[in-house]
Amino acid sequence: MDRPSPASAVDWENLIEAVRPYLSTLVDTQRTPNARPVLTDDDSFYESSRVPGPVPAVGTPLPGLLDEIISNVLDRGYLNGAHPHYFGYFHPRPLPVAVLGDSIASLLNQSPAAWRMGPAATAMEVRTLAWVADFIGYRGAVGSALPAGIFTSGGTLANISALKLARDAVLGEEVRERGISGDGPRATVYASAEAHYSLSRAMDMLGLGRRSLRLVPTDRAGRILVGTLLERIRDDRRAGHRPVAVVGMAGATATGAIDPLTELAAIAAEHGMWFHIDGAAAAVFADLARTRARFNGLSLADSVTLDPHKWLFLPYGLGCLLVRDPDRLSGSFSDQAHYWSHDSRTDFVHLGPEGARPWKSLGLWLALRHLGRDGYERLLMGNLDVAARLAERVLATDGLELFADPVLPICCFRATPPPGADSDDYNTALHRELIRRGDFHLTVCRPNDEVYLRVAINNHTTRREHVDALVEAVVAARATLGR
Amino acid sequence: MDRPSPASAVDWENLIEAVRPYLSTLVDTQRTPNARPVLTDDDSFYESSRVPGPVPAVGTPLPGLLDEIISNVLDRGYLNGAHPHYFGYFHPRPLPVAVLGDSIASLLNQSPAAWRMGPAATAMEVRTLAWVADFIGYRGAVGSALPAGIFTSGGTLANISALKLARDAVLGEEVRERGISGDGPRATVYASAEAHYSLSRAMDMLGLGRRSLRLVPTDRAGRILVGTLLERIRDDRRAGHRPVAVVGMAGATATGAIDPLTELAAIAAEHGMWFHIDGAAAAVFADLARTRARFNGLSLADSVTLDPHKWLFLPYGLGCLLVRDPDRLSGSFSDQAHYWSHDSRTDFVHLGPEGARPWKSLGLWLALRHLGRDGYERLLMGNLDVAARLAERVLATDGLELFADPVLPICCFRATPPPGADSDDYNTALHRELIRRGDFHLTVCRPNDEVYLRVAINNHTTRREHVDALVEAVVAARATLGR
Repeated sequence: MDRPSPASAVDWENLIEAVRPYLSTLVDTQRTPNARPVLTDDDSFYESSRVPGPVPAVGTPLPGLLDEIISNVLDRGYLNGAHPHYFGYFHPRPLPVAVLGDSIASLLNQSPAAWRMGPAATAMEVRTLAWVADFIGYRGAVGSALPAGIFTSGGTLANISALKLARDAVLGEEVRERGISGDGPRATVYASAEAHYSLSRAMDMLGLGRRSLRLVPTDRAGRILVGTLLERIRDDRRAGHRPVAVVGMAGATATGAIDPLTELAAIAAEHGMWFHIDGAAAAVFADLARTRARFNGLSLADSVTLDPHKWLFLPYGLGCLLVRDPDRLSGSFSDQAHYWSHDSRTDFVHLGPEGARPWKSLGLWLALRHLGRDGYERLLMGNLDVAARLAERVLATDGLELFADPVLPICCFRATPPPGADSDDYNTALHRELIRRGDFHLTVCRPNDEVYLRVAINNHTTRREHVDALVEAVVAARATLGR
Repeated sequence: MDRPSPASAVDWENLIEAVRPYLSTLVDTQRTPNARPVLTDDDSFYESSRVPGPVPAVGTPLPGLLDEIISNVLDRGYLNGAHPHYFGYFHPRPLPVAVLGDSIASLLNQSPAAWRMGPAATAMEVRTLAWVADFIGYRGAVGSALPAGIFTSGGTLANISALKLARDAVLGEEVRERGISGDGPRATVYASAEAHYSLSRAMDMLGLGRRSLRLVPTDRAGRILVGTLLERIRDDRRAGHRPVAVVGMAGATATGAIDPLTELAAIAAEHGMWFHIDGAAAAVFADLARTRARFNGLSLADSVTLDPHKWLFLPYGLGCLLVRDPDRLSGSFSDQAHYWSHDSRTDFVHLGPEGARPWKSLGLWLALRHLGRDGYERLLMGNLDVAARLAERVLATDGLELFADPVLPICCFRATPPPGADSDDYNTALHRELIRRGDFHLTVCRPNDEVYLRVAINNHTTRREHVDALVEAVVAARATLGR
């Protein structure tokens, strides 16, 4: 019998020896991502994994398992977000220092959920939150005894938390005890039709009901129509409802549109509503010289969602909610108020929805220290530059039409269909043809119900030549389809 | 100027070279945990991290940062859960293979949130969920086209998700649209007074209100009083409320008590309620020969919470909710039902509360494959054995009194106070004295409002001699305190 004993599972020498031969293959996925397709998609592997079966009765030596992981993932089902031709939804090529941070956090296994579960992890997470707030110029919480916000497992949980803060702040914290049930007014929330689905999920989770999320139409560039928003709020108030929050998109997922934040802040203030900004993707651009003006009003928000696992190039698993008044966090999430006091050490478990959670912010601590503001800004400016290049190439290419001048590294455009053909059908077919060729990964979006090709530059190593190649591929695909 | 350029942050050679000198220090924290105290707690570091300051303007080379991480964490704020004298709340010494899994997942950066974000990750996560269900003998979902459950960032989110399933199932899925608001009956939930705080948080999050969580008293061993539960349900029904769920504890956090699950299942069935089991810590013991009988009724549950980051010895960040009818998951969490169909590939984002999330289940896939059922059972049996040894030593030691015969590797006991002294005060002082000596980490709990020392054996390398040493330390501390 040479089945592995439990001892081998706790033996680091054995592990390090077993991993050594695989290390370069693993690291090569990130170092030379162009060597692999943008997407590997083998249905047979997916289907076979659905066949039920019991836990393996006995163990398997490690090298075989590493072979399996590498071949299953890389050859049979890999989304290669590190490829400079990956232009899809946010799937960053992770920074090596952030992968290192995740590995160290996992090994030391400290949790910042409570000070007693990871004293230094908690302290360093407090510091990291302050840095994130500073990075985007959201400085309202400076001076509070509580941290500037919370880290969550992602933006969805950050948005759910934000609407909970809004619900409790506007309806009163007594709602935490008695629930929504009763004869109170219906609480309503407002956002643009380009808002992320997590807002709808938040309404559902929080017992407010998805029907009470009012999705307001947008202008041609995907920004909320402020006049229509005001009408909806007034109609709802007349009908006896209670508007509790307005959400501004600062970088809508599909188009990158930025709502007029200063105007939304004024509306929220006028109607006693919470003002939340969903900047999951793009709030990191809020304090860059080149984009700052488009984010005017951000500092007026009561809360801001920002995902470091998007344009801060961290691996998955780190969302963030920053708040102007951190006392709101303990007001909404403290579960044992009688032994929670502001001068005690921070127990993040009492400031957000999650309990024990991993120290994912160590990767961000490392990245912010290693790159500094200067280094990060250069990576972000690089992506802005590539988007500007793409827009320029689209404008210079016959038969291509830009959705809007890209403020962020998201550029949407479409092709003119052949005479008599439907634009949406044609661009859908064009997208399918580009994906079929396999050299690029990009998506379509439907702002104002019209189909556009959507190109997001969220890889810090994508360069001008990569979008030049994309435009050439679009031209070639058009030649195949006819135009 | 030798500030790091952004290039160095994306240079794997540089990273691997920088890490090499630190690797043995990092690995030693796990390999020889006894070399460090059970808890390092330097308040000055915590306080200094609260002083606000901007993001560093420019970067810092990696070696200095690694020095900082190691010294800040290990010397200034480290909870050493890998130490065999750590007997506190669940803070496992992580399995090396699971740390490897986290590192690979972070490097490849696939997300099982959606098939298109990580095809193999999604497939392997489907498989891993089935294995977890099989491991604990919870086989209701076999044969469904959907996965057996969802992974979450932890048990709190799993419990919140479970009560959302209950809310939507019993009140009707229309509640997702219209919210709780209105003139419907008050939805009530029942659990023992030993239940985890996350149930209260769930009531708050879901708009049901914390007041509608009925905490039912327990017997001397910490198990819910079924007669009292029935009375509460009947009273609530008479008052026009709508009981939606009963939650059984299968391993209460403090005492390890297991509620009478079969009886709770019958009550839930009789009253048309959802039956959830919170087995975050201990459900992994449900199908072991030695403990199986105490979990009778587990397979009748509509849902079960189980945290692999507890007694499956994974690093933080992996909770799990298993369900009997996986259609309930899509019924409660699908946000775009019109393009979601059961024969399509699994998009976990439509089955649970989170959006994009890290592939934390890779570590569990690796651990279950590498150890097999056999290897994992041996680790768990080892912990049971150590707990039995501790109980035996407590019974054999004058002046120590066992709370209850330990079913799980949690053993609570107390010391007889000197004549005339208060037992709670004395045991609180005894705990403080043990912690002051610094050789052990353990907690107190207050089942039935009486103070006991709480010893949880959740380190797979804790042996009999470590609890023998603990009993000796208790005896020595008593000598110091007087008895």
